Amino acid sequence: MADSAAKHEIDELYQKAKRAKSDNENGGGEVGKEIECGNILSEFKTTKVLSDSAREKNIFIHGKLADQDAVIILEKTPIREDTLAELFTGSTLKLEMKNDIYSTYRLQAPSQLNEIKTTVVCPATEKHIKKYQRQESFLVEETGADYQSITLPYIQKQSFSVQWVYNILEKKAEADRIVFEDPDPTVGFLLLPDFKWDQKQVDDLYLIAITLQRGIRSLRDLTQEHLPLLQNIFQKGKEAILQRYQLPASKLRVYLHYQPSYYHLHVHFTKLGYEAPGCGVERAHLLADVIQNLQSDPEYYKTRTLYFPLRVDDGLLSKYKEAGRL
Amino acid sequence: MADSAAKHEIDELYQKAKRAKSDNENGGGEVGKEIECGNILSEFKTTKVLSDSAREKNIFIHGKLADQDAVIILEKTPIREDTLAELFTGSTLKLEMKNDIYSTYRLQAPSQLNEIKTTVVCPATEKHIKKYQRQESFLVEETGADYQSITLPYIQKQSFSVQWVYNILEKKAEADRIVFEDPDPTVGFLLLPDFKWDQKQVDDLYLIAITLQRGIRSLRDLTQEHLPLLQNIFQKGKEAILQRYQLPASKLRVYLHYQPSYYHLHVHFTKLGYEAPGCGVERAHLLADVIQNLQSDPEYYKTRTLYFPLRVDDGLLSKYKEAGRL
Repeated sequence: MADSAAKHEIDELYQKAKRAKSDNENGGGEVGKEIECGNILSEFKTTKVLSDSAREKNIFIHGKLADQDAVIILEKTPIREDTLAELFTGSTLKLEMKNDIYSTYRLQAPSQLNEIKTTVVCPATEKHIKKYQRQESFLVEETGADYQSITLPYIQKQSFSVQWVYNILEKKAEADRIVFEDPDPTVGFLLLPDFKWDQKQVDDLYLIAITLQRGIRSLRDLTQEHLPLLQNIFQKGKEAILQRYQLPASKLRVYLHYQPSYYHLHVHFTKLGYEAPGCGVERAHLLADVIQNLQSDPEYYKTRTLYFPLRVDDGLLSKYKEAGRL
Repeated sequence: MADSAAKHEIDELYQKAKRAKSDNENGGGEVGKEIECGNILSEFKTTKVLSDSAREKNIFIHGKLADQDAVIILEKTPIREDTLAELFTGSTLKLEMKNDIYSTYRLQAPSQLNEIKTTVVCPATEKHIKKYQRQESFLVEETGADYQSITLPYIQKQSFSVQWVYNILEKKAEADRIVFEDPDPTVGFLLLPDFKWDQKQVDDLYLIAITLQRGIRSLRDLTQEHLPLLQNIFQKGKEAILQRYQLPASKLRVYLHYQPSYYHLHVHFTKLGYEAPGCGVERAHLLADVIQNLQSDPEYYKTRTLYFPLRVDDGLLSKYKEAGRL
């Protein structure tokens, strides 16, 4: 989760970089120029590796750059199909193993074909360092009673602002991003791309359906009376995605989060096969299952024990610890 | 999924390589020597990229090597903490963007610090090529009736062999890998590491509990009578993992697959936070939820519509297509 958040941040930075670069191309100035520069990293003193991923080939490092706190993010770049021919002809191979039809090598590529994306945050604040620090998660067991006595009071006290959601619903923000709209006040919703999706390819399609009806905080508030709403989102959401992106329902994963990241009912639509953050069984609930469960038991989500992960720095986790539940 | 399967294969190869290397160190011979070799890849002609992952920085390529079919697998290596100092001092930086406290660069590292793991399969058979080919998945909707009329007859006709499971249960194989055993014929089980886990660190802990009782194919066969079995696996599995690996239940994701990859009841124990293949909501079912569902409705898994992904080359998918269900 820490990696994903950090990854998202890098991507945002790169978007900024692109914009800066294109502004520069149109205007001039120093920002965005790609130049070979003095190697500022040769002065970098590592304090601590904040997190890393062997799978994603990235690392987040806290250290000092000229006596200032800095965070350095390194991430190997994807292997590009258009450079393969050059990579094969221009590299050095070191044989590791040969056995029958299988052989393995360490390939040393020309540096310019095998770059490492590098981001420097300097001076970095305590907040930056904490953000990139790997966060352990714990699985919390929440009975219906726990929800009433621990979770609900915490949510209410925090009064997490969902003003940004209301801005979307009132078309004060992001109106140009809306993919589909059903204006019915009871079963209506808006469908729009999640921020994580750049909309450049459907491989990582990610849309969010936000209910127009206010006051449904999460899965825990759902009863049989919400079935028409849920069925409407499921049906019309799938139709809109088929029409706009030519993806049939059999290529979609449609689910809710518990705990959600904001307490206004919303549904996630992602492409099947795309390992979206938060699509794991410990946090996601298939909308189709939610509908079936409510059909057979109107009190299913009021009474059931639900399980979900919380990060160490989540305030709700402290409440569960205080209650002796962890 | 294709990536994961392929990744698994590479890892197996590397295990083989390691073994070959250590055999060699003890014995001599050609296998396992690490030598700079003629660049056989300079002759490689790409036919097709079979699959790739921008997230994992790998690529699987089908092509020709000296007129023979070959598959080349390239994967960038993880960034190693112990080479950071050398990486920072010895690399060239190209500035991409500078904006306030943020700056981004393309880092060109010395080739030997930034290798690409390369695997060659040559000559490659049609089976190899198919194995590494990215496979689309479809989400299948299976009602209780569909299970009886489509899935169950397919499973029975295929008669997937679970002899290897019986070999484990009878201690004819893998006996030295058993982490915990409850010999009770009704509620007993064996707990052992999954092949995907190298047991070197608990970060990617992955164990499987296999029931001693035979004839329970999957989730679909479970009724209230299996509650003691499921509760026993849940409880004793968690205790054994705490004792052996010092991981408490709050750090574990305990689940079943539907469809399972083999039809003898087994339960997955993975570390929370490790994105294990198959832990997504579309395939995994938390054991805690399964227990609750059976407690409140003994026929839950007999009657419920279940959703699961199937790869294009899965024979069961053809059956659903023939039945007009996709």
